[in-house]
Amino acid sequence: MQVAIIDEGRAIDLGGCRFHAIWLRDNAADAETRDPGNGQRLIALRDIPEGTVVSEARLDDAALHLRFEPEGKTVTYDTGWLMAHAYDRVDTRGPGWTGEGIETWDAGLMTRIPNAAFDDVARDRAALAGWLGGLARFGFGKLTGGPVEEGALLKVAALFGYVRETNYGRLFEVRTEVNPTNLAYTGLGLQAHTDNPYRDPVPTVQILYCLENSAEGGENMVVDGFACAERLREENPRGFDLLSRYCARFEYAGSGGVCLRSRRPMIELAPDGEMIGIRFNNRSAAAITDVPYADMEAYYAAYRRLGEIIDDPAMEVSFKLSPGECFVVNNTRVLHARKGYSGTGSRWLQGCYADMDGVRSTHAALVQELGLAAE
Amino acid sequence: MQVAIIDEGRAIDLGGCRFHAIWLRDNAADAETRDPGNGQRLIALRDIPEGTVVSEARLDDAALHLRFEPEGKTVTYDTGWLMAHAYDRVDTRGPGWTGEGIETWDAGLMTRIPNAAFDDVARDRAALAGWLGGLARFGFGKLTGGPVEEGALLKVAALFGYVRETNYGRLFEVRTEVNPTNLAYTGLGLQAHTDNPYRDPVPTVQILYCLENSAEGGENMVVDGFACAERLREENPRGFDLLSRYCARFEYAGSGGVCLRSRRPMIELAPDGEMIGIRFNNRSAAAITDVPYADMEAYYAAYRRLGEIIDDPAMEVSFKLSPGECFVVNNTRVLHARKGYSGTGSRWLQGCYADMDGVRSTHAALVQELGLAAE
Repeated sequence: MQVAIIDEGRAIDLGGCRFHAIWLRDNAADAETRDPGNGQRLIALRDIPEGTVVSEARLDDAALHLRFEPEGKTVTYDTGWLMAHAYDRVDTRGPGWTGEGIETWDAGLMTRIPNAAFDDVARDRAALAGWLGGLARFGFGKLTGGPVEEGALLKVAALFGYVRETNYGRLFEVRTEVNPTNLAYTGLGLQAHTDNPYRDPVPTVQILYCLENSAEGGENMVVDGFACAERLREENPRGFDLLSRYCARFEYAGSGGVCLRSRRPMIELAPDGEMIGIRFNNRSAAAITDVPYADMEAYYAAYRRLGEIIDDPAMEVSFKLSPGECFVVNNTRVLHARKGYSGTGSRWLQGCYADMDGVRSTHAALVQELGLAAE
Repeated sequence: MQVAIIDEGRAIDLGGCRFHAIWLRDNAADAETRDPGNGQRLIALRDIPEGTVVSEARLDDAALHLRFEPEGKTVTYDTGWLMAHAYDRVDTRGPGWTGEGIETWDAGLMTRIPNAAFDDVARDRAALAGWLGGLARFGFGKLTGGPVEEGALLKVAALFGYVRETNYGRLFEVRTEVNPTNLAYTGLGLQAHTDNPYRDPVPTVQILYCLENSAEGGENMVVDGFACAERLREENPRGFDLLSRYCARFEYAGSGGVCLRSRRPMIELAPDGEMIGIRFNNRSAAAITDVPYADMEAYYAAYRRLGEIIDDPAMEVSFKLSPGECFVVNNTRVLHARKGYSGTGSRWLQGCYADMDGVRSTHAALVQELGLAAE
């Protein structure tokens, strides 16, 4: 590899890959720039002179030594780190791309549901890393053989993060109620949906934990919303564009003191097109008023088609939970549904919310700690 | 007002404002469509026939009566509700618009800081509604005269919502520590920042509550990130575009078992250009790798300029908290900073996170309950 100073020191060329002087100086890892203990940056961009240039560049082994002016400061970089953080490339990804760590799925996942035994993940850090890795990758995971006791789902949340408390409580009871404040608390079947799209930010993880399930029916289904959106995009790029370009609205005001409203798209993209979220919930969809008249019919057609894809058995993984079993979903991606159930026997689940950043953080820290290959 | 069926029943014209048949049918509020108890929709779009048209339309007083085919279903609408949800208009808003409920501010807010007495908001629901309304509108509010006791900030969170627990705990101590896991736990001055941009979703509310503050220095400042972004857009539309179009990256791995990473823009826009979030934090900014080489220098120039605007005293509201006082910010909008402080005397704050949806929901429910004019 060779290094050359280019553009009068405003950048360097390292083996054909260019880096700007200001970017390099900002990403210095010396002890004056980054705290050696906690890794946080000790300076702000305002502390780096505006006309910063590279005046000397020298390579030896895996290290690049740069001198910056006007500071007269010398910094050493690991060339492997630099190549891993290179940005001198052309982005050819279209709208709705997903990152390397994401694997979309359909009913074919049925035979390889990301599953683990509760005791294993509670006791063995490698088993936990594996299960969390599946949850990050597929947005879905099951645990079996857990304790059949109230509040056991809080132990599941504690494996990777913290409960997101809401107006429904730290945890909520999913069973038939008289005068239900939410249709989830009835025996009705529920179309596949993401939970609480009327909340902003939505809870990004949901845990549903089974304590009793002798009723007829009440099977659970999960569907990968990213896979459904990809299928819509292939069939009908304009429909995908409409559902991602315009905001839908969601609302819940079903109990006293609560009036939750949001305005977000059904298919959420990062500004560079990465697919980052799905919101789909017929029960709490409010009037859509942010789509202009000229696009509303096509928007509704796309909304209908997305629902048909979501309802397609070819997309669905289904199972019936036994007491002591639970499933966990990335609620910004994977929809869940249940079949209606009858009044004979009993069905009692407990639910709670948590967040995906805890899943990803705990997984990344375990991978590092255990020296596992990063996924 | 007059009503006419147009486009072979696929839409109606109500006093010059058009509505589609499918939109109208989907937004019916009759007891078969919406649960009269909790307001949730009982049907999904799949339950409404694809070729739905209006076959009869009749107006009387404030009610519009429509008949839909092929269902043969008659539904009555409040015309006031329809006009309030009209979507037959042209959107002329440019990137970075903010909603009606948002008022951006600069140092001029100093003389009218949204402030209330702790006892008032704790006891009087109208006072609470007023204070929460200010927090929603300005993204910032102070409370004075609260109890000087550990954990008092949890009472503030309970006024409107629920604590967002994180790896820092349900609450965290902000005071000088030996071997700090975060630079916040030192006497260093901190540039104005939003908290935890490496979390996804970020905590959307932060509460900082003062228990001791006899140290010299340690004043707090708050800055309206939306106002700063608006100023950047006026000075340099391309810089605003770059900071909103490309993702930055943030990271925190300063303590064991934690490895939080995010990829989000510094200025976040909804797909239709609404400004919905600011992320700005020099300490946890990671290498920016999603900006192509050709745009990186201009991106850095915009990043620098945004920081200069944020640092401009003309944008800043500052104050020194006394024991029993706290401030609350919308952490997706308002940045906070502190001046460095010395070792003489003591400074002890407690902090916790919560979410803006609780602020907006509690405020909206109080406005409704008390019959106040909605802001």
